[in-house]
Amino acid sequence: MRATIIHGPGDIRVEERDYPTIQLPTDAVVKVSAACVCGSDLWPYRGVREVRKPTAIGHEFIGTVESVGEDVTGLAVGDFVIAPFVVSCGACPQCLNGVTVACEHLAGWGSKDDTGHAIDGGQGQAVRVPLADSTLVKVPGVTEPEDALRASLLTLSDVMATGHHAALAAKAGPGRTVVVVGDGAVGLCGVLAAKRLGAERVIAMSRHADRQAIAREFGATDIVEERGEAGVARVRELLGGVLADSVLECVGTKESMEQALHSVRPGGALGFVGVPTGGAEIPPRYLFDTNISVSGGMAPARTYIPELLADVLDGKINPGRVFDSVMPLEEAPEAYRAMDERRAIKVLLEP
Amino acid sequence: MRATIIHGPGDIRVEERDYPTIQLPTDAVVKVSAACVCGSDLWPYRGVREVRKPTAIGHEFIGTVESVGEDVTGLAVGDFVIAPFVVSCGACPQCLNGVTVACEHLAGWGSKDDTGHAIDGGQGQAVRVPLADSTLVKVPGVTEPEDALRASLLTLSDVMATGHHAALAAKAGPGRTVVVVGDGAVGLCGVLAAKRLGAERVIAMSRHADRQAIAREFGATDIVEERGEAGVARVRELLGGVLADSVLECVGTKESMEQALHSVRPGGALGFVGVPTGGAEIPPRYLFDTNISVSGGMAPARTYIPELLADVLDGKINPGRVFDSVMPLEEAPEAYRAMDERRAIKVLLEP
Repeated sequence: MRATIIHGPGDIRVEERDYPTIQLPTDAVVKVSAACVCGSDLWPYRGVREVRKPTAIGHEFIGTVESVGEDVTGLAVGDFVIAPFVVSCGACPQCLNGVTVACEHLAGWGSKDDTGHAIDGGQGQAVRVPLADSTLVKVPGVTEPEDALRASLLTLSDVMATGHHAALAAKAGPGRTVVVVGDGAVGLCGVLAAKRLGAERVIAMSRHADRQAIAREFGATDIVEERGEAGVARVRELLGGVLADSVLECVGTKESMEQALHSVRPGGALGFVGVPTGGAEIPPRYLFDTNISVSGGMAPARTYIPELLADVLDGKINPGRVFDSVMPLEEAPEAYRAMDERRAIKVLLEP
Repeated sequence: MRATIIHGPGDIRVEERDYPTIQLPTDAVVKVSAACVCGSDLWPYRGVREVRKPTAIGHEFIGTVESVGEDVTGLAVGDFVIAPFVVSCGACPQCLNGVTVACEHLAGWGSKDDTGHAIDGGQGQAVRVPLADSTLVKVPGVTEPEDALRASLLTLSDVMATGHHAALAAKAGPGRTVVVVGDGAVGLCGVLAAKRLGAERVIAMSRHADRQAIAREFGATDIVEERGEAGVARVRELLGGVLADSVLECVGTKESMEQALHSVRPGGALGFVGVPTGGAEIPPRYLFDTNISVSGGMAPARTYIPELLADVLDGKINPGRVFDSVMPLEEAPEAYRAMDERRAIKVLLEP
């Protein structure tokens, strides 16, 4: 089969790999219908995270179950499934607490499971899925989704679940005012998630017309282009002299974390899902003095997918709008370039 | 009148001061029935916070209204009242959000109000209270409380409200396991607050027999004497292999913050009320990787007092047990020494 392999910074290749087979009785093999490039795939691409050897890459995919191990009971050949961005067992204390990203049997795509068997990356034609029953979510009544639905289903594997995590962490909800820092796919999904949870006012911080348009479509009531102190002042002005009840931090840099923290009112909540990089700080004394709560991290997508999926299938949310580009799998190198150069918000890859 | 004045590190004196009078129509003058020394009073005493000039000190007191300004409508002469540890207006956006410690007219005892009039410290015979209607809480049906009740009412001005804040911030409640780091008056009140909120299991970290005894009385189900990694291991053992759902940090040092953060399970909550000092850190990457939420800060005591007061008056909670020493006001210097040397958990001063 064809699969995307990262060889080093800036070096993405689509290569031939063995077609996956069932290795363990709890496995499934999924034929990928669509995959995509994540903002976090750009870290090794940009050399921010080391690439020690050629590695299969990609952790967001959806597709059809092609075969199952003998212990798999909840899935059947032909089921259309969503893969969250990590493998989880569903039975350990962390999974039972809903924190599937801290699963005791956690494994990542393109890596190895905890028995030492290799796992394919998501940006390829097929993937062996360990712990398939607890990891995959079946999409009921769907065998081959049309393009718009397919795109929305694909966002549930990561970006929409992550936007939802940020919105929950920031306590977005009825009567609350919300600011979203970051206009990438996650930030845009954060706007949609905050609106979905009933937020009264959603301010998207964005300087790009195409992203602003999607933010508006997703429910943003206001756009703020200013950054830094000017951005905070504009938020305060829009909200009648006070800062936001809820702020979603969807970038992870020092600057974006500051922007986010300084946009929260005393006693408000910051939800952060941008992986902290470049010296991002959460100063304890600032939290103490402002009574701002901070929550977030890696989204337990597996926990959220059923609830979000219901709304996607009902047509209530259409997060797939974040994909502004579709390419065949063979063009994965160009997909990375387009994401890296911010020519694309998010690229869908078709194997 | 007699009042406690700090002249510099280690230099506490009880001196003669003018008896307070109504300066503004929203003022009340309160004759102090009991006051006390706070852990945070020890910072200037220890030279951690600079003392530029002799300053009236003390921010926890209860007493009887002696006179009121003409605009005061909710209080009458003879009312017994609790003073939260700051002045608040009750009408600004922050107060309306319940975050009275971020009030736009915030003022501290022993300081000045926002019109520039001096405010007496709480460790004295009487205090001018600005914005009396919104700052003070009347204790219904009480004119001169007996000693045990008086001690419990006094804790509502700070330590019990602060323990409650930590417990709420840590999401303590039914079915939750709780660890409390810190066995000072606030930590002990945190144990009581967690129990009051319905926590299933409350582990107090303490090495002092007298404090352990109060923790047990307040509802601690377990005591952990170990610290650092050994303490974390013991918590994990007590909780059957997982860490705590809720951790209350009631100290504020680098070590106690680490102890607290490392005692929270993935997806759990840290409530911190210890003023961050000595390099206490909240590492963003640790929060990201663990999905631990962090919340806390200065407790909005004014917001919590009515609810806690009801339970004190009903005899459901008896937080006054944290006072292990009562001294006349004239012995304030000895009260500070006893607190500083940890010979006393908390000292009640009788003017």
